[in-house]
Amino acid sequence: MKIGVLGTGMVGRAIASRLVALGHEVKMGSRTPDNENAAEWVAANGARASQGTFADAAAFGELVFNCTSGDASLVVLRAAGAENLTGKALVDVANTLDFSQGRPPSLLVTTKESLAEQIQSAFPEARVVKTLNTMNCEVMVDPSLVPGRHNVFVSGNDESAKSEVKGLLQSFGWPGEDILDLGDITTARGPELYIPLWLRLYGTVGSGHFNIALVH
Amino acid sequence: MKIGVLGTGMVGRAIASRLVALGHEVKMGSRTPDNENAAEWVAANGARASQGTFADAAAFGELVFNCTSGDASLVVLRAAGAENLTGKALVDVANTLDFSQGRPPSLLVTTKESLAEQIQSAFPEARVVKTLNTMNCEVMVDPSLVPGRHNVFVSGNDESAKSEVKGLLQSFGWPGEDILDLGDITTARGPELYIPLWLRLYGTVGSGHFNIALVH
Repeated sequence: MKIGVLGTGMVGRAIASRLVALGHEVKMGSRTPDNENAAEWVAANGARASQGTFADAAAFGELVFNCTSGDASLVVLRAAGAENLTGKALVDVANTLDFSQGRPPSLLVTTKESLAEQIQSAFPEARVVKTLNTMNCEVMVDPSLVPGRHNVFVSGNDESAKSEVKGLLQSFGWPGEDILDLGDITTARGPELYIPLWLRLYGTVGSGHFNIALVH
Repeated sequence: MKIGVLGTGMVGRAIASRLVALGHEVKMGSRTPDNENAAEWVAANGARASQGTFADAAAFGELVFNCTSGDASLVVLRAAGAENLTGKALVDVANTLDFSQGRPPSLLVTTKESLAEQIQSAFPEARVVKTLNTMNCEVMVDPSLVPGRHNVFVSGNDESAKSEVKGLLQSFGWPGEDILDLGDITTARGPELYIPLWLRLYGTVGSGHFNIALVH
């Protein structure tokens, strides 16, 4: 399918490359149509890869990934244009990290509302699905980098958008039974507030190639 | 050893009972010296179990557990008395849940400071260790209720207090390699902010007998 990826950082490039490898046509969006990261990515990824503005990428995609940093996401999505997101699954993988006090960063979201909920409120016609924000971007698109069973979470109000996203996750290599549907978009608070623990586990493991598994 | 347990709810009773079963002398503290929950617990747990005020329990313990609800913990600890906590390992297992908007609850802590840090600041002479707040109280004291390997986290500034607490956790049944030391007391933000995810996983699993495992 045609997919728009907003953001040219590590996360955007990892997801966009994986999508192209799986046969999708992907347009990477950024503030300017000639962003250098995006140009490098296009050069490396062949005919199914293209670039443009946030609005170009959102208009192009039948499904859109938000891979921008969380503190910029609402501004980016406004630049992408509500009309280019209407009716589409909008996959939000962003975290709102605050590096202003040094490392490890803290969070800019409150414990009362997630970024995903803010996005869903600001773009009521988009079908927002929060997922993949709880791990390193290499693990997102290749869960076999972490041995054994471990989980990815999905939150969203729209069942058909969640089904579409779960299908993509399975194509990334996530076994269906390891994809945990937490419920509606308010449940995104869980995975978003998990990030401070992820950051400390990163400190313990010393690499991003880890994840958590639900055991019961 | 002699241990004070502050709080007479499910968590306090589960921990206090396990400690008595392991041979410790335990005094359960509450607002009043004749609390009914505590009296029932004393009656069920024999000669090594006793009860008193928060101050009685804190003065009695060579080590003290905070098993009160997080929104009351600072008030309870002031009632227990800074002088009764000085130099002691103070094991904080509390979560600051806000049920005012219904279920599932949200958190009263911010993303910038944990309850454990607030306690350590308010009681600088106590050696605060955050642990066990990331699971159901039955799993806290009997990790074999969840099959296979899974983790408990420890945060604190004082290495000897953490060693003492890790020893207690091992006596509860936690294998040493499954006890993850996240670092100083600021790392308690991770396990405290994990609770919203725990609450959603509880919704998914349908029982409290689960936990997460670090996989890498």
